[in-house]
Amino acid sequence: MIKLFDVAIFGATGAVGQELVSCLAKRDFPIKSLRAFASSASIGKTIAYGSELVQVESTENANLDCDIAFLSAGATQSRLVAPKVLEHGGVVIDNSSAFRMDDHVPLVVPEINGDRLTRGTRLIANPNCTAAITLMAVHPLRSLGKVKRLVMSTYQSASGGGAKLMHELEEQTEAALAGVAVVPKVISQPYAFNLFSHNTPINEHGYNDEEWKVIAEARKILGMPDLAVGVTCVRVPVLRAHSIALTIEFDGRAPTEEAVRAALQSAPGVTVVDDRANNHFPMPIEASGQGDVFVGRIRPDLSHPSAINLFIVGDQLLKGAALNAVQIAEEMIARDLI
Amino acid sequence: MIKLFDVAIFGATGAVGQELVSCLAKRDFPIKSLRAFASSASIGKTIAYGSELVQVESTENANLDCDIAFLSAGATQSRLVAPKVLEHGGVVIDNSSAFRMDDHVPLVVPEINGDRLTRGTRLIANPNCTAAITLMAVHPLRSLGKVKRLVMSTYQSASGGGAKLMHELEEQTEAALAGVAVVPKVISQPYAFNLFSHNTPINEHGYNDEEWKVIAEARKILGMPDLAVGVTCVRVPVLRAHSIALTIEFDGRAPTEEAVRAALQSAPGVTVVDDRANNHFPMPIEASGQGDVFVGRIRPDLSHPSAINLFIVGDQLLKGAALNAVQIAEEMIARDLI
Repeated sequence: MIKLFDVAIFGATGAVGQELVSCLAKRDFPIKSLRAFASSASIGKTIAYGSELVQVESTENANLDCDIAFLSAGATQSRLVAPKVLEHGGVVIDNSSAFRMDDHVPLVVPEINGDRLTRGTRLIANPNCTAAITLMAVHPLRSLGKVKRLVMSTYQSASGGGAKLMHELEEQTEAALAGVAVVPKVISQPYAFNLFSHNTPINEHGYNDEEWKVIAEARKILGMPDLAVGVTCVRVPVLRAHSIALTIEFDGRAPTEEAVRAALQSAPGVTVVDDRANNHFPMPIEASGQGDVFVGRIRPDLSHPSAINLFIVGDQLLKGAALNAVQIAEEMIARDLI
Repeated sequence: MIKLFDVAIFGATGAVGQELVSCLAKRDFPIKSLRAFASSASIGKTIAYGSELVQVESTENANLDCDIAFLSAGATQSRLVAPKVLEHGGVVIDNSSAFRMDDHVPLVVPEINGDRLTRGTRLIANPNCTAAITLMAVHPLRSLGKVKRLVMSTYQSASGGGAKLMHELEEQTEAALAGVAVVPKVISQPYAFNLFSHNTPINEHGYNDEEWKVIAEARKILGMPDLAVGVTCVRVPVLRAHSIALTIEFDGRAPTEEAVRAALQSAPGVTVVDDRANNHFPMPIEASGQGDVFVGRIRPDLSHPSAINLFIVGDQLLKGAALNAVQIAEEMIARDLI
């Protein structure tokens, strides 16, 4: 008999929340009951789960008794909700940055470090989207040599800023095409036909929050606390998939292009898109809505004998968020931990 | 008495050609006469030069006698036109890739290697846009240490593909917002809210033409034939300024952030935009229409003790093309070579 679970989604009406509901339905997640929580502005709305309609509830004074809670309402909400769910004996899979760097909380991409899920794991952090997507292409290459340094430049989509930033990009672009001036609302940078350094605060080293997360989370997920990571995070006018230009330096001579291609081709969750003759490589528009991370531009870095280059594209809302969270829950079930 | 020159522009109706005319007018270039040449499709059109209107002429059977010819009609046209102008004793400033790697032709960014313009120079190549813009930020740092390696990821605008690609980006975006499907015309990749690996052929090393040009031209302009250059060229949905995320590795310890900032602040043609408190860094929308190259995100690369990071944005049609060409002519005049 298949075990069924009482599942709760927090932040159910957001961009990631909606994809969570959709992933659960598409993947036939073993659900006994589904509850959807959101901020007071969304109370009264309904969420479609397959053919069912789920009423959106308020978190306040709610009974938070459930088997699995997916948290996707921001770090502040996560810090409030997680302890209550854990108190009731539920498992928490948190999409925010609240617990990611907590030593006692595993930060998991199932294909990479699913083995960090063990007896007693009740709170699991879902990684930063850019880190998760990039590492899906890095991890399969660790069998070919010791990875020493990553140098990354990102091309991040609007979806990383939520549904409202996606809407802002469309709205501003429409106005720009009509020749109408628009005042940015969600973020201060103009977004139509423009790009800008990631809109998060800059620390004393000159790195923004997003870059800082990518460095710390890459080290934690790979279990390589000394991994050298250079990263520049940039927001581009793309709707929902992140791209990363990556240089990987190995300790010693780089593996051959053929070995890299073979390792990526056999990696679960990775699709190689590397058609040089037709100039067809990973593109956000083709990766959008896809669970796999697309990898191409596989080639030696001619500027360093230890380095190879890749171009990686993944759906920010799926492998970068909702899909990975659901996969964590599935891995917990497969390991008989829930 | 100021010397005045007979000037001819080839490809005068293209995106770069129009900016050439505009740069000459804005900079009060010492013109005696201005002639505008274009393909047969544009014959009969006129070009506004200040308050004057210049009739567009056909290159065929034309008298190509002039003092200075700016060529901007592609490499094939340049190979046809350049010898004829030179034959008449004119100076040729060529915006195409036709002669850039010719050992006898200087490839010039005046702020960097204007001293390559010497007695007898009659044919000068104007560099690839990405190379010119990037090197404007690299060159001022050479006084701080020996540059050993550049690792670049580009965010290139539609203007690099000419006026027709800029139009295609707007047209496709308008259709996407209206929910209408469009078949790409100018290039095969969909462009609305999308990005893609630079749409030029891939060589046997896995590098596209644009990347190959950047590597070769950077070495030639800097006079460093062994400079290590790793580069990934990507086209983004931006109209007319190119951005570059750059890691510069020095031989030995990297210069301090303060020294880098000071060197860039005093460099001609460079504007430092590096306001961490307000998250304000170089953006294509602000660099468009500006002659200076904008540089920001100045910081140590924490992944390597010899490296620093920069984010560079420059108008592809100005410093990346037309402005630099006009500056070459001005430098020739200042050096009394024309």
